Amino acid sequence: MIKVGIVGYGNLGRGVTLAVDMAKDMECVGIFTRRDPESINPVVNFPVYSMDKLQSFKGEIDVLLLCGGSATDLPKNTANLLKDFNTVDSFDTHAKIPEYYDSLEKVAKENGTLSAISIGWDPGVFSIARMLFGAVLPNGKDYTFWGKGVSQGHSDAIRRIDGVKNAIQYTIPKEQALESVRAGENPTLTTREKHMRECFVAVEDGADKERIEKEIKEMPNYFADYDTIVNFVSEEEVKEMQQKLSHGGFVFRSGNTTDKNSHLLELSLKLDSNPEFTGSVLTAYGRAVARLSKEGKTGVVTVFDVPLKYLSPMDEKDLIKNLL
Amino acid sequence: MIKVGIVGYGNLGRGVTLAVDMAKDMECVGIFTRRDPESINPVVNFPVYSMDKLQSFKGEIDVLLLCGGSATDLPKNTANLLKDFNTVDSFDTHAKIPEYYDSLEKVAKENGTLSAISIGWDPGVFSIARMLFGAVLPNGKDYTFWGKGVSQGHSDAIRRIDGVKNAIQYTIPKEQALESVRAGENPTLTTREKHMRECFVAVEDGADKERIEKEIKEMPNYFADYDTIVNFVSEEEVKEMQQKLSHGGFVFRSGNTTDKNSHLLELSLKLDSNPEFTGSVLTAYGRAVARLSKEGKTGVVTVFDVPLKYLSPMDEKDLIKNLL
Repeated sequence: MIKVGIVGYGNLGRGVTLAVDMAKDMECVGIFTRRDPESINPVVNFPVYSMDKLQSFKGEIDVLLLCGGSATDLPKNTANLLKDFNTVDSFDTHAKIPEYYDSLEKVAKENGTLSAISIGWDPGVFSIARMLFGAVLPNGKDYTFWGKGVSQGHSDAIRRIDGVKNAIQYTIPKEQALESVRAGENPTLTTREKHMRECFVAVEDGADKERIEKEIKEMPNYFADYDTIVNFVSEEEVKEMQQKLSHGGFVFRSGNTTDKNSHLLELSLKLDSNPEFTGSVLTAYGRAVARLSKEGKTGVVTVFDVPLKYLSPMDEKDLIKNLL
Repeated sequence: MIKVGIVGYGNLGRGVTLAVDMAKDMECVGIFTRRDPESINPVVNFPVYSMDKLQSFKGEIDVLLLCGGSATDLPKNTANLLKDFNTVDSFDTHAKIPEYYDSLEKVAKENGTLSAISIGWDPGVFSIARMLFGAVLPNGKDYTFWGKGVSQGHSDAIRRIDGVKNAIQYTIPKEQALESVRAGENPTLTTREKHMRECFVAVEDGADKERIEKEIKEMPNYFADYDTIVNFVSEEEVKEMQQKLSHGGFVFRSGNTTDKNSHLLELSLKLDSNPEFTGSVLTAYGRAVARLSKEGKTGVVTVFDVPLKYLSPMDEKDLIKNLL
């Protein structure tokens, strides 16, 4: 049995808990939280401990599944945890991955631990598709579309506007762009042509909706380059939408082997629950990290480094027989 | 530069030749054929040698890309070639892969060579999808659909019928089945419900078409379990259809993380040229085999064993920066 610890119990922690429970070859040593352990009632009856206790489990946990956020939790904590434990995380700030990688590599090597970073669906499953598709169809073009799904960063940005009580933002791929890519037209798409953004905003009584809508639509980086729809709704409506955490997207590669012959490769995900699916991917890579660590591997790995067979609880002969 | 040899120059050999030509990090030492080398005019101006000459290139070729068929060429020749060379092949007789694997493993280990087997799109890219999807969504169901595309085995079977001059058979996934899977209905599909078979048959003058159609439709294993359409056409029409080697298919996994939340993962390929795309995949794995062999790896590997980064000519840092 692979012994795992779950660090953090938000939406992702809950998803990981469900996935670990489903894995017949794993047992959960505990969920570790910075909150009062008594205040947490996990979806599966695993023991809950304070983070302070984690250190005392050194040697009893094969891998920690880190369920903190990329903005502060992971950059602050992963290096420290790596001194005593193997880790898997879902660090997803694309631009900062190389820096994050470097910050962990030395610690892991020095302490003989292994860290799989940026695991989930993007980065993660989508990265696998981009890399594989590019390698097998070198003369081609990549397209990644996200959605329909909630962007946490964009929702946060709206909430910071004066007069906004709560807000949720959906990223939506444009049908016309998807169709053009699927038709093998190899279009050059601007940011505006790929995705649109739809916002549902609850404002304070008497707030200037016109000003708020303008501030959203003109916000640089976040909205200015997109067609943005702003809907004003009640706080209750926003709250209800926040319960539904569905997401998904598409990775395409369209290219040629000769002038005459073109090919279209497509991966698509339709996810009812972003955190539950991400948690499930994290758990599969937890299995891989535990195994690779036992074989002596140390340092930082990404989805590009891990042979896929390590993700499955199936025996290699069965994998070949049933899935190859 | 990675030095490759191409063994065999049929449709697949031609596809591999195009792919090797496109790979900036590869050079082709030669195309090796059992035919008269003078009779071959390759699509790219690589040297062509008789198979007898291959042995003399020992030590000068990093990897052989084997372009022979799975029925006789590969089972007969690969073990022998592995004594002196690393190899990649597209062995695709699913049921016989374990046996083929075992027949090569000992030779490769004894001779310090490396062999990647069953590389292409199915087995190959589709196997990666089946394995990855299953690992990240363990509570679910797999579906693989092939087509629309030509099945060589089924075309051959028709050609063996008395009175048939030439024939081509297309495997076509049934729209209704695809739609049901895409809708997340997790259907249980019979063979007949998944695919249909359409045949184009040229017969000899005066042949009994009714008898031939009956023989096709009732042929056990090949057609009896399918809805089969038989069209009688001219020899020229069959020949023209045989020029077009498009294919493709779909791998789905549909499953749940909780009772409430389901997820749908889909990979699809639309290929104008089956042999050119297969050749492109073979070439990418040729790169991986050459590199892994340099690192000291020996034995037999499949797509489940090879870390994806080995497939790309890109530097690891660039992969992380651009594709993760």
